[in-house]
Amino acid sequence: MLTLYDSAISGNAYKVRLLLSHLGIPLKRIEMNVDDGSTRTPDFLKVNRNGKVPAIVLEDGTALSESDAILYYFAEGTRYWPSDRLGRARVLQWMFFEQYNHEPTIAVVRHWVAHLGKTPESEPALPAKIAAGYLALDVMEDQLQRSDYFVGNSYTIADIALYAYSHVAHEGGFDLGRYPAIGAWLKRVAAQPGHIRITD
Amino acid sequence: MLTLYDSAISGNAYKVRLLLSHLGIPLKRIEMNVDDGSTRTPDFLKVNRNGKVPAIVLEDGTALSESDAILYYFAEGTRYWPSDRLGRARVLQWMFFEQYNHEPTIAVVRHWVAHLGKTPESEPALPAKIAAGYLALDVMEDQLQRSDYFVGNSYTIADIALYAYSHVAHEGGFDLGRYPAIGAWLKRVAAQPGHIRITD
Repeated sequence: MLTLYDSAISGNAYKVRLLLSHLGIPLKRIEMNVDDGSTRTPDFLKVNRNGKVPAIVLEDGTALSESDAILYYFAEGTRYWPSDRLGRARVLQWMFFEQYNHEPTIAVVRHWVAHLGKTPESEPALPAKIAAGYLALDVMEDQLQRSDYFVGNSYTIADIALYAYSHVAHEGGFDLGRYPAIGAWLKRVAAQPGHIRITD
Repeated sequence: MLTLYDSAISGNAYKVRLLLSHLGIPLKRIEMNVDDGSTRTPDFLKVNRNGKVPAIVLEDGTALSESDAILYYFAEGTRYWPSDRLGRARVLQWMFFEQYNHEPTIAVVRHWVAHLGKTPESEPALPAKIAAGYLALDVMEDQLQRSDYFVGNSYTIADIALYAYSHVAHEGGFDLGRYPAIGAWLKRVAAQPGHIRITD
């Protein structure tokens, strides 16, 4: 069976659980604490030298990390990965946008506000992170006014990647009420067969 | 002909020029200023709603952005994209690492130090960015002590993605002398057929 190094508060880890649920693939979950140094122990660095969850270990012992690369690994050959080259490149375009513009702003603000509490280090950086998070939401809203899902009209791993932290953005204080197209998309994603919640 | 919205100082844009040079694909370059708001004009936002270079426009007018997604688009079906699923996932793992851990630290420090000059906003953030950049280099060194390239022993778009800012990291003050395996890899990359320099 697959082993997922997981975290209940990590949207990145939730992405992997969500796709595997859609695909009906069972997994063993190992809950990690992402704030106490557990992901930087010598044993864990053998699983992911970069010291982060999620990481997944396949049945043959091969370890893979980076949430969106794990999504690709399991989605290839399924309905969640497009059959045309431009569609595939677009999915990756949105996943790189997610990791560069969305996760470091929306997920980090949520973690600071909802889990760690504001600190003398985080508080000065917060306004710029919030502003950048809203810019990322603006980009998403613009696309979702033109298509039901991020790439054409099919639910793909680009949607899974962007759903993970968008649907809990309010926990960091983001007001999604300004974004009707994102709101409608969140409902479409939650209605997909095999959907699970981040708390499941 | 392809049109590349380009920047002479952008490693992200250089990645695209480097792969297209390997592939012998000609392109038209449009030089953009990344610091004066040129990438946030209404006209440019039609090319890339996220307001960044590189962006590429195909012959049929289709626009694609995110450097590593553009690399994928052109590499698929060539020697620069692995033929096995695990290899492909590993290439993406390194490219997501590059965009999350490497570019926001090593490239941003270089831009602040070598191009913009330190500002009252950037200076307090600099020590943490430098420390995080060295952690990314540590992860790279560890892999390159075990393999000639990032994924097995073939030069792929993972190497192109990581080469772009690694080979100019010294412009931000990073000391690559501590990293012999990275140093040897930089030479192997520069010896690839069709290699061009960032200044070419």
